[in-house]
Amino acid sequence: MQQAFGLQGEHGMDERSIADISVTRVEDSAATPADDTLAVEEPLEIQLGRENHWTSVSITMRTPGNDDELAAGFLFTEGILRSAGDAAAIEPWGPFSGAAHVRNIVRVRLAPNVNPDLDRLRRNFYTTSSCGVCGKASLDALRSVAMRPVAADGPRVAPAIIHGLPKTLRDAQAVFASTGGLHAAGLFDSTGRLIAAREDVGRHNAVDKLIGHALLNRTDTATAILLVSGRTSFELVQKAVMAGIPMLAAVGAPSSLAVQLAREFNMTLAGFVRERRFNVYSAEHRLDYHVTI
Amino acid sequence: MQQAFGLQGEHGMDERSIADISVTRVEDSAATPADDTLAVEEPLEIQLGRENHWTSVSITMRTPGNDDELAAGFLFTEGILRSAGDAAAIEPWGPFSGAAHVRNIVRVRLAPNVNPDLDRLRRNFYTTSSCGVCGKASLDALRSVAMRPVAADGPRVAPAIIHGLPKTLRDAQAVFASTGGLHAAGLFDSTGRLIAAREDVGRHNAVDKLIGHALLNRTDTATAILLVSGRTSFELVQKAVMAGIPMLAAVGAPSSLAVQLAREFNMTLAGFVRERRFNVYSAEHRLDYHVTI
Repeated sequence: MQQAFGLQGEHGMDERSIADISVTRVEDSAATPADDTLAVEEPLEIQLGRENHWTSVSITMRTPGNDDELAAGFLFTEGILRSAGDAAAIEPWGPFSGAAHVRNIVRVRLAPNVNPDLDRLRRNFYTTSSCGVCGKASLDALRSVAMRPVAADGPRVAPAIIHGLPKTLRDAQAVFASTGGLHAAGLFDSTGRLIAAREDVGRHNAVDKLIGHALLNRTDTATAILLVSGRTSFELVQKAVMAGIPMLAAVGAPSSLAVQLAREFNMTLAGFVRERRFNVYSAEHRLDYHVTI
Repeated sequence: MQQAFGLQGEHGMDERSIADISVTRVEDSAATPADDTLAVEEPLEIQLGRENHWTSVSITMRTPGNDDELAAGFLFTEGILRSAGDAAAIEPWGPFSGAAHVRNIVRVRLAPNVNPDLDRLRRNFYTTSSCGVCGKASLDALRSVAMRPVAADGPRVAPAIIHGLPKTLRDAQAVFASTGGLHAAGLFDSTGRLIAAREDVGRHNAVDKLIGHALLNRTDTATAILLVSGRTSFELVQKAVMAGIPMLAAVGAPSSLAVQLAREFNMTLAGFVRERRFNVYSAEHRLDYHVTI
C-alpha cells in the first residue's frame, strides 16, 4: 500500500476537495489492491482584523473550498459579523500546505469603523462555535446568545416541495458521490429551487459555508429552506436561526434540544425527509396541509 | 402539536437517553398526529479539581448517560488524566435540569499529588477536544500533542472478524433503533467479542465514553478493535491513538487526514465495513490475509 495522496479534477468540482489513495479492498477473505478517493480534511484558521493586527478566532477541520464563505458564515452565525459590509475583504493567507496544497488560513479584513468586541467573540465562540458548546465557562449562558425568533409568517410550502429537496441536493453533490465521506447542506427558495449546495467533512461547516454564501451574495434567507443531509442538533438550529431561515429540513433525526430550540424560535423543523415522508416537529403553520386526526 | 417532552424506560436502556414527543407525520400530502422518540441532547460541563477549587474544562453537547465515562475518556484522550488512578472520584453535580431531568455537570476529583498543568490543558483542549481543533491559536501545534505510535505487533485478525463487527454493534444499540438519532461506537477484543458499546448524539462523545469505560475498568486496549458507526475523522484517529488502540474500523468513509494520521501512528484503519466488504488504509500487517494482485 503506497503513500499516494494525489489530486484530481475530473469530478466537476473543486479538485482540492478530494484525494486519490491506494487501498486494499477486502471482500469475504480476498484482498486486492485498489484505488479509492477520499474527502480532504485540513485545518482552517480564521483570522480577524486589519493591517498589522490579526486575531486568531478559531481553527476548524474542514474540506478545502469556499473558505471565504466558511469564514463569513462562521463569524455571522457567531454574531461577530452583522452584515456582509462588515468585512472589507476575505482572503486566503499563509503557505500552501498539506497533501492538498491548500492555504489553511483565511483572513477576514474588517471594514473601517467595524470593531467587534473580541471578549464577546470569545464568549460567543465557546457557546455557539462550529464545534458545539465547548470551552464555555458555565451552562447558564447557553441559550443567551443574541437570537431573535424567525419572522412569524415566512413561506407556506406544500409537502411536495419538501419531498423533492433531497434528490435535488443529491444531484448537486459531486464529491459525496465519489467519496461517501461528506456532509451536505442545500439552501432552497420556497418553490424548492436550489440556491446553493455545499459539502464538508464537518456538518457544521457545510451549513456555515451555505450561510456565508447567502450573506456574501445578499441572498434573501427570510423565505428560504435549509436542507441538511444528516441529523439536526441544537447547534444547526442555532445557526439557522441566526441567519433568519424559517424552515430547516433534515434527512436524519433531530435531537431533543434541536426541537426545543426550533419551537422556542418559531422555526419549522422537519426530519426523516425521505421517500415522500417526513415528520414535522415545530411551527407547522408554514406547511400547506391539514392535519387529519 | 404539543410540547410533550417526556421520558420512558421501556427500551431496556438508560431512560434519560430518549424523550417522547408529539409530531405530525406527513406521507405524500396527508398529515396525521403521531408519537415519536428523540435522542436527548443536553450540555455537559466537565469540572476538574478538588475540595473548594474546581475548574470548568469543557462543555459538550451529549446524550445523558455514562457521564463519568465521558469525562474520563475526554480527559484521558486530552492527555490530562494519565491513568484511572489520577481521578479519586467522578461524580454528578449541580441541579437536575432540562427536559430529561439530568445533572449537567460532572466533577472529576483529582487524586492527591496529581496536578495537571491547566495551561497545557487549555492548549490541548483547543487542539484535540471533542469539537475538532477549534480555538487553537496556530496551526503549528496541530500534530504536536504527545502521542506515541500504537504497539507494532498487536492482534492479527481474520477478515471474518471485521465483517461481523457491525451486526454485533447494531444488536447492542437499543437507543439507535428507537430514535435513529445516535452515533454508536463499540470496543471489541481481537476475536470480535463485544467489550462495550456506547451511543451519543455526538460522534466523539460515543468514543470518549468507550475509552473512558476502558480506562475506568482497566480494559486492555492494546489488543482491542474500535468500531464506529459513521465516518472517521482526524480526531477519532487521534483519540484511538491516545488510548493505544491498534485497530479502528468504521462503517463510513475516512477523511484524508484520518488516513495520514493512522499511517503515521501505525494504526490499522478500515473503512466502509459493510456487507462482507471493507477497505484497508493503513498498517494492514494486522489483518490475516494475503493481497492478490
